Amino acid sequence: MTAQHSSKDAPKTLCVFISVVSPVLSPDSLLTELQPLMALPEVKPEQQSDHDQPGTLPIEPPHRAHVCILKGVSYFAGDMAPFAKWMKRQFILLQLLDWVLRGAAQVMFVNNPLSGLIIFAGLILQNYWWALNGFVGTLFATLSALILQQNRGAIAAGLYGYNGILVGLLMAVFSNKGDWYWWLLLPNIFMSMMCPVVSSALASINSRWDLPVFTLPFNILVCLHMVATGHYNHHFPQVNIQPRSELPNITWAEIDLPKLFMSVPVGVGQVYGCDNPWTGGIFIIALFISSPITCIHAVLGSAVGMVSGLALAAPFGDIYFGLWGYNCVLACIAIGGMFYVLNWQVHLLAITCAFFCAYLGSAIANIMSRFGLPACTWPFCLSALTFLLITTGTNKIFKLPLAEVTYPEKNLCKFKKHKKQQKREMAEKEDNEKKKQQKAIENELILNEKEQLKLQIEQMEEGIKVSNCEVKNGPQTQDMTVIEAIQ
Amino acid sequence: MTAQHSSKDAPKTLCVFISVVSPVLSPDSLLTELQPLMALPEVKPEQQSDHDQPGTLPIEPPHRAHVCILKGVSYFAGDMAPFAKWMKRQFILLQLLDWVLRGAAQVMFVNNPLSGLIIFAGLILQNYWWALNGFVGTLFATLSALILQQNRGAIAAGLYGYNGILVGLLMAVFSNKGDWYWWLLLPNIFMSMMCPVVSSALASINSRWDLPVFTLPFNILVCLHMVATGHYNHHFPQVNIQPRSELPNITWAEIDLPKLFMSVPVGVGQVYGCDNPWTGGIFIIALFISSPITCIHAVLGSAVGMVSGLALAAPFGDIYFGLWGYNCVLACIAIGGMFYVLNWQVHLLAITCAFFCAYLGSAIANIMSRFGLPACTWPFCLSALTFLLITTGTNKIFKLPLAEVTYPEKNLCKFKKHKKQQKREMAEKEDNEKKKQQKAIENELILNEKEQLKLQIEQMEEGIKVSNCEVKNGPQTQDMTVIEAIQ
Amino acid sequence: MTAQHSSKDAPKTLCVFISVVSPVLSPDSLLTELQPLMALPEVKPEQQSDHDQPGTLPIEPPHRAHVCILKGVSYFAGDMAPFAKWMKRQFILLQLLDWVLRGAAQVMFVNNPLSGLIIFAGLILQNYWWALNGFVGTLFATLSALILQQNRGAIAAGLYGYNGILVGLLMAVFSNKGDWYWWLLLPNIFMSMMCPVVSSALASINSRWDLPVFTLPFNILVCLHMVATGHYNHHFPQVNIQPRSELPNITWAEIDLPKLFMSVPVGVGQVYGCDNPWTGGIFIIALFISSPITCIHAVLGSAVGMVSGLALAAPFGDIYFGLWGYNCVLACIAIGGMFYVLNWQVHLLAITCAFFCAYLGSAIANIMSRFGLPACTWPFCLSALTFLLITTGTNKIFKLPLAEVTYPEKNLCKFKKHKKQQKREMAEKEDNEKKKQQKAIENELILNEKEQLKLQIEQMEEGIKVSNCEVKNGPQTQDMTVIEAIQ
Repeated sequence: MTAQHSSKDAPKTLCVFISVVSPVLSPDSLLTELQPLMALPEVKPEQQSDHDQPGTLPIEPPHRAHVCILKGVSYFAGDMAPFAKWMKRQFILLQLLDWVLRGAAQVMFVNNPLSGLIIFAGLILQNYWWALNGFVGTLFATLSALILQQNRGAIAAGLYGYNGILVGLLMAVFSNKGDWYWWLLLPNIFMSMMCPVVSSALASINSRWDLPVFTLPFNILVCLHMVATGHYNHHFPQVNIQPRSELPNITWAEIDLPKLFMSVPVGVGQVYGCDNPWTGGIFIIALFISSPITCIHAVLGSAVGMVSGLALAAPFGDIYFGLWGYNCVLACIAIGGMFYVLNWQVHLLAITCAFFCAYLGSAIANIMSRFGLPACTWPFCLSALTFLLITTGTNKIFKLPLAEVTYPEKNLCKFKKHKKQQKREMAEKEDNEKKKQQKAIENELILNEKEQLKLQIEQMEEGIKVSNCEVKNGPQTQDMTVIEAIQ
Repeated sequence: MTAQHSSKDAPKTLCVFISVVSPVLSPDSLLTELQPLMALPEVKPEQQSDHDQPGTLPIEPPHRAHVCILKGVSYFAGDMAPFAKWMKRQFILLQLLDWVLRGAAQVMFVNNPLSGLIIFAGLILQNYWWALNGFVGTLFATLSALILQQNRGAIAAGLYGYNGILVGLLMAVFSNKGDWYWWLLLPNIFMSMMCPVVSSALASINSRWDLPVFTLPFNILVCLHMVATGHYNHHFPQVNIQPRSELPNITWAEIDLPKLFMSVPVGVGQVYGCDNPWTGGIFIIALFISSPITCIHAVLGSAVGMVSGLALAAPFGDIYFGLWGYNCVLACIAIGGMFYVLNWQVHLLAITCAFFCAYLGSAIANIMSRFGLPACTWPFCLSALTFLLITTGTNKIFKLPLAEVTYPEKNLCKFKKHKKQQKREMAEKEDNEKKKQQKAIENELILNEKEQLKLQIEQMEEGIKVSNCEVKNGPQTQDMTVIEAIQ
Repeated sequence: MTAQHSSKDAPKTLCVFISVVSPVLSPDSLLTELQPLMALPEVKPEQQSDHDQPGTLPIEPPHRAHVCILKGVSYFAGDMAPFAKWMKRQFILLQLLDWVLRGAAQVMFVNNPLSGLIIFAGLILQNYWWALNGFVGTLFATLSALILQQNRGAIAAGLYGYNGILVGLLMAVFSNKGDWYWWLLLPNIFMSMMCPVVSSALASINSRWDLPVFTLPFNILVCLHMVATGHYNHHFPQVNIQPRSELPNITWAEIDLPKLFMSVPVGVGQVYGCDNPWTGGIFIIALFISSPITCIHAVLGSAVGMVSGLALAAPFGDIYFGLWGYNCVLACIAIGGMFYVLNWQVHLLAITCAFFCAYLGSAIANIMSRFGLPACTWPFCLSALTFLLITTGTNKIFKLPLAEVTYPEKNLCKFKKHKKQQKREMAEKEDNEKKKQQKAIENELILNEKEQLKLQIEQMEEGIKVSNCEVKNGPQTQDMTVIEAIQ
């Protein structure tokens, strides 16, 4: 299973949380607020059985207006499942566009075409040529997945597109030939089409530990392209990345606080290789639309990265440029509610992971620079995989099975429901056992009665025999033999 | 299982294809041509049961001459199983020679001592000292496998020798002390004897995904030796490999077409580190003898590598020297019919893999050169493993279980037979079900008849009883009770 | 299971071998000597059932003094299980100290707080600041494991501490800021606390092959810290490690034999980054106290590393400094009796592994130096893992299941006992089968008797019937029908 998010069991009602601001969500208060939403009267009966339990159905009239707003929101938030359902009946090219847009958003674990559209808008704001390369990459990666007959649900969720957009974008970003060098589209298309191959191969390995492939295919393929051609190449030269060879000039008095503050959205933008803070801001909005929890962890991760950069005495330029942020953004999203069920322990774990990721980011950037390579998102992949592999004795840190992962809010809903169901089942089991015991007692009583009746019948029969015997004694011996033979 | 090729279930008749020229084989025409061969009258009955189905036995007289030629060919083509069988009864040193020769050929996935002999001839043509080192490497690797009590079938197939020959050869090729530096034999023997250790360890890991170890032990051990000593060493200095640090001078007008054409056999020769085009040509002949499909994919792979080199603006010298070819040769052989069952989809996959391998080869060569290392066959190993890990929804790309892999032609035969047998089993199942239904109907009829007979008997008995009763009425009641008790 | 050593099934009596000198132990003579010890009268009955078989109980009087000495030794040798048991009832801080001391010794696979104490003494002899950092590292690694609720038995065995002590020590050793740079404690604590995270993640992967994580978490985290900050850093600069770029000056006449001899204890000391030969000597004593076999293999490994260094023309300075020894020490301990059951084949395997490890050490040191990194214990980890992954047809090389591993002497005892038990079970099985056969024969006899009795009864009955028939013939036909129906 290559899927981080399964699109098959997408629910018909979305759990939308427009009032969530604090990053540390109290799941209880969250769920209480959601109960009315999850019991919308418009929900069809067969869907209801998946989602709700009898007893949560009646809605109080004062909540109705609130519900209507939430319902409207549910159409474009979360994973836009109603839209995906509607899309299935449309023309194939339109579907492909949907998949490409979802693929663009899946870089941030968001399965939402509207977010994808906003992200493309942000990319266009940054650079037309990059946006074009990103689009070509996503398109051909998705097409290649179709040719290789990969899982259709995963393709429809954009899970074969997100590596493609990154490959396309970053190959354009790191090309030394400048914009509008059309030949670049050739390796772009080749590498994008290799994405599903590498994804599928990595998934074969990672699935043994129920791990996602993250952006590993992108990392592998972009590094492969960059190091295969290198800076000294006639056809596809790369920008010259050099390792640090002297002490950077860091004067704490010179620190530029507005730029430091701006580095948070820039860090989010750098996930797609964009250094424009407005583009980063647009990406944050795109995240917020789909999942506020994801959005908050993204911002938090970027901030953690910035702080780590300062702690490890990184050159200010790198921090302003968002290079310390983007890996932490992704790591914080992945651990904070996406692959683990969110609670405050998991939230702390996500922040720890972001710090570890920043450290790792600096290390990997230093190593990669020896080969003229950028760090890509290797630090995110390695740190998130490490934190997903942890086994612990506590049941507070609950890792979702890979096929169950959707988005933080729904993961929480599902988990709560699952817990409730478990409790109910436990209760039912106890009831059943009690009933069984009662039935056993009843059965015994019935059996006893039967036995008594049998005895009575036998006695009656014997009585008949005896009376017969009294009449004539001849055949008796013979008959007794027969009865013995039967027994 | 370390075995790429299992030697246990080697068939007694070989499927030889001397008329195969086109790389894209139509399996149907191939198999039709093979049918007579597979039903040779000389085949002993117990072998026949493995290979042939009754009904394919009779051969038409006109085909007899053709068959005789094919039969003669079958003795030295394919995996020379009759020879292997004959060898089992010979003196152990002769057996060891057989294993060493097979080991030499197994580098190209060929399990054939004749090919091995020809390959050694090619090596001697290239360089006596290298050939000696290769022989010593193969010999000690095989001996070490015997000491470590590895699978005897795998040893006999040369699967513990091929890493040894490469270790021996390449350590001699990259030594900076020149030829006939006898001390080199010491690390050569040590590293060759480590081959089965590393093979066995890697097989423990790769077997979890049913993957072969390819030449990974060779890659690991040669890189280990080269980087452990390095260029600046008194005992075992290595040639100085430097990373590219300036734009290579590429003038398209200066391209040397004959040399470019020659790079195809040179690429095949470079699998063993040989740059002599005649040696490469001899290797191609050695491949053709055993398996034409392998041979064609080898040439095709080398050509793909050459084209990739031109596309990525590699220095012409590297292309002429075959450095772009040898990995693609191996990758193309491995995917094209060796580990997948050949059809046109797999053929396209093999070519894609060769292109990917060429790209990867450039990348790995650039990275390894930073450590003063050659690329070895890392690119082949990584690309072939990636393409073997792909999972896909289509049943056109059929991966053979590792223990079933022999050589492309036999893989195809086996697969066809397997398919046929499946069909036959399906048909038999249907027949059986039909028969069962018929039998059920018949049984019912018989049962009905029995019932009727029973009824008649009962009626007759009742008639007797009645007549008895008429005679005397006493025991009737009693007997009826007995009958009831029985029922 | 992250545990290399399980502390749960720790025996109550220790198998101590104070008379062991030769590295190649004859297990038979060893075990004979141990028999009295294993049957101490002080052993409580329920413990006895685990360890001893009835029949080994009686001790001859002349052995009693010997036994008393051995018993005294058993309290502080091996894994000090009686002490661990006593510790469980103590105050938590005292327990924590026990865990920290065991963690310090676990670097050498020794689960013994006394050895840990001696090792800390050695560290203090080397450098106060380093010892402090090591202590802080062990402490916080253990605390972090407690927070993450890792396996309590593994924590108590010090298995979460040993990476911490190495992280703490080596971060201090390679810091360019000199001693008593207090800020270093911050990354030290962070990295130590990451140890259980990385350990747990790696264990999830390695447990699939029943492999321990060794010191991989330490290697990963120290390299991560060093390369993340690098030599050119304001806060945490590292010492400048440069790759070799010219031929080292090696004059064999200048070799310093006393220094060469001293390199053996220095090599043992370098496991903890210490170059003081006295510290190394103290470590050797610490090993001897817990397990003489471990101690011998440590010294042997260090000697093998020294020889390899000379063979590969390493600069004498590196050899004197113990850089060629410490990985071989660990590899030789791990293979020689710790994870395999010791016999002479395994002993040879351990020496081979030490040679391989030395080779690998040189290779890895050369590669790591390009990134300004030391080799750490990567060579040990990789070589030991390779040798633990070997599969072989011989049953002489027996790999213990990871959960069963304790220390070489006890591993041997267990294995012997296991073998004996298997034999006894085999014998019992045979006995049981014989008994079964006898019983079967008896049963047949009984059955035959029954049959004969039945026949007699039937004959008697028939006699009765016949006599009855003679009396009156009427109901006979009827009764026969009934009997037929029954049959």
